[in-house]
Amino acid sequence: MGKYTKTEVIGVVFSKLKPDKTKVFADIGCGSGAVTEFFAPYVKKAYAVDSSVEAIKQAQERLKKFENVEVVCSDGKEFLEKHDVDIAFFGGTKGIESMLEVCTAERVVVNAARIDVAVKVAEKMREIGIFEEIVLVNVAKSYELAGGLAFKPLNPVFVVCGEL
Amino acid sequence: MGKYTKTEVIGVVFSKLKPDKTKVFADIGCGSGAVTEFFAPYVKKAYAVDSSVEAIKQAQERLKKFENVEVVCSDGKEFLEKHDVDIAFFGGTKGIESMLEVCTAERVVVNAARIDVAVKVAEKMREIGIFEEIVLVNVAKSYELAGGLAFKPLNPVFVVCGEL
Amino acid sequence: MGKYTKTEVIGVVFSKLKPDKTKVFADIGCGSGAVTEFFAPYVKKAYAVDSSVEAIKQAQERLKKFENVEVVCSDGKEFLEKHDVDIAFFGGTKGIESMLEVCTAERVVVNAARIDVAVKVAEKMREIGIFEEIVLVNVAKSYELAGGLAFKPLNPVFVVCGEL
Amino acid sequence: MGKYTKTEVIGVVFSKLKPDKTKVFADIGCGSGAVTEFFAPYVKKAYAVDSSVEAIKQAQERLKKFENVEVVCSDGKEFLEKHDVDIAFFGGTKGIESMLEVCTAERVVVNAARIDVAVKVAEKMREIGIFEEIVLVNVAKSYELAGGLAFKPLNPVFVVCGEL
Repeated sequence: MGKYTKTEVIGVVFSKLKPDKTKVFADIGCGSGAVTEFFAPYVKKAYAVDSSVEAIKQAQERLKKFENVEVVCSDGKEFLEKHDVDIAFFGGTKGIESMLEVCTAERVVVNAARIDVAVKVAEKMREIGIFEEIVLVNVAKSYELAGGLAFKPLNPVFVVCGEL
Repeated sequence: MGKYTKTEVIGVVFSKLKPDKTKVFADIGCGSGAVTEFFAPYVKKAYAVDSSVEAIKQAQERLKKFENVEVVCSDGKEFLEKHDVDIAFFGGTKGIESMLEVCTAERVVVNAARIDVAVKVAEKMREIGIFEEIVLVNVAKSYELAGGLAFKPLNPVFVVCGEL
Repeated sequence: MGKYTKTEVIGVVFSKLKPDKTKVFADIGCGSGAVTEFFAPYVKKAYAVDSSVEAIKQAQERLKKFENVEVVCSDGKEFLEKHDVDIAFFGGTKGIESMLEVCTAERVVVNAARIDVAVKVAEKMREIGIFEEIVLVNVAKSYELAGGLAFKPLNPVFVVCGEL
Repeated sequence: MGKYTKTEVIGVVFSKLKPDKTKVFADIGCGSGAVTEFFAPYVKKAYAVDSSVEAIKQAQERLKKFENVEVVCSDGKEFLEKHDVDIAFFGGTKGIESMLEVCTAERVVVNAARIDVAVKVAEKMREIGIFEEIVLVNVAKSYELAGGLAFKPLNPVFVVCGEL
């Protein structure tokens, strides 16, 4: 399994961020744009933000079908200092703590593959008074095996949730 | 943990049903209405259907805030024979196989707590040519323990997915 | 992840079979012999049984260090009809139901990757009055990622347990 | 589910500690003695150590059937400074880091319910050069529900493993 956020895990993130058509959403560290693609139909506006030029190219291609999506090549912290967003998702692992400090979103979710990152992000959220919970997500998907159904697991993800 | 569908699991179901404002959604065996409550803002119309009078009372109370929700006290199969729906969720366990036979939704998800039900539903979906996959969902939620964070697991769920 | 039974999963199987130095153990469908290798030091005698000549070659090589292990190239059912064993493990998927019928072990465990096999084996165990439980095992192992620790999941296994 | 270590999880711990009849085992923070009870038949000698008088009473009762078990009411660190053990299990959460510093066992396992403890223990093991891996264990056990089988999950456990 690759590194992009899987649909089922995005579903869990969605259930914690509870987007609606009045909300501005930011996908910080958007990579190829899978999370923004999922969220775009359900929000007023979505920003897909990444500091990698290559990621931005992929995201632009994938997200050009949406009129309410803006793809931004930027450092996440700088972006958050300049833009007001209502709900925010952080998919990457670098500098999240300093981003959380400047983020004014009412709800944030950080997906961490690394257990040490999950703990640090939860501590930072506690420090700034927004920590809600960590949701540990283990999902496996069936595939056909010898006429029956066996399961292939996705990598476990720590979904760290904050709320103002 | 009780019997209603938990928010995180609803998120996974949502990610498989991919609702939008053009879709009519049916929540068959809606119980107290948690799944319909989650879906209502994202669909054109939602039906919350249950044959239990008590469940319907709870669902009516919970869902009265939505203009696009209709709460229906009915057997699931009879409901599906009379109504066209685009996406459907089955949360209960009785008679799902015969309901699937009359269901014309383009995407369906059946949540099974029981492994034997999951297998039977997958077989029925295969028989009628709509089986896509079973997603096995294990979610645990953090809680504070002695100043740190431990995890309480939700019951594992077999999310059986079909697509026309 | 390959197809042999992983150490952590063998540990769970061990905890259900509770071997000791008075017991004769059979590993039916032993493959390369990983389960027998784990059990051998803890039992009086261990049989590693497989009908595949290739598997038997690998098992012989791996298990030659044990004096109390006998590697047998045989159909599982035929083996069980001829030998008395106290505890038995079934790692394969073919013909397990008919093997269970002739098996006189006081405790048996069947590892199923396939959900349909798990259900069928549980039903067969119920029929012959030995079903105890299915243990659903999800294990993930850490690996180093960018100086921290992320997790790689093993395939989920249904550990079906029977007891006379 | 209560706080003692469940049999299936003990099985995973067993698979990492690989006891045998030449080994001296210590169960530090033994509580009511479930882990020692499991290990005792497979080791030369087992120490069940706890600083709680109440725990020691329960452990003594549970473990009196074994001739090779010594139940010790002691602080874990003090015990480890005075005794040579080959393999050690830590089930509690207090002071594990300082215990690891004085522990000379060739293999150690720490079970952590808390994610922050898991990370700190892994860091300490790295610091003293014994860290091997964290195994994340999610187990669910079937129970009968309406004639079929549903699953009740055990609490997730972080099994932190070290090896000299």
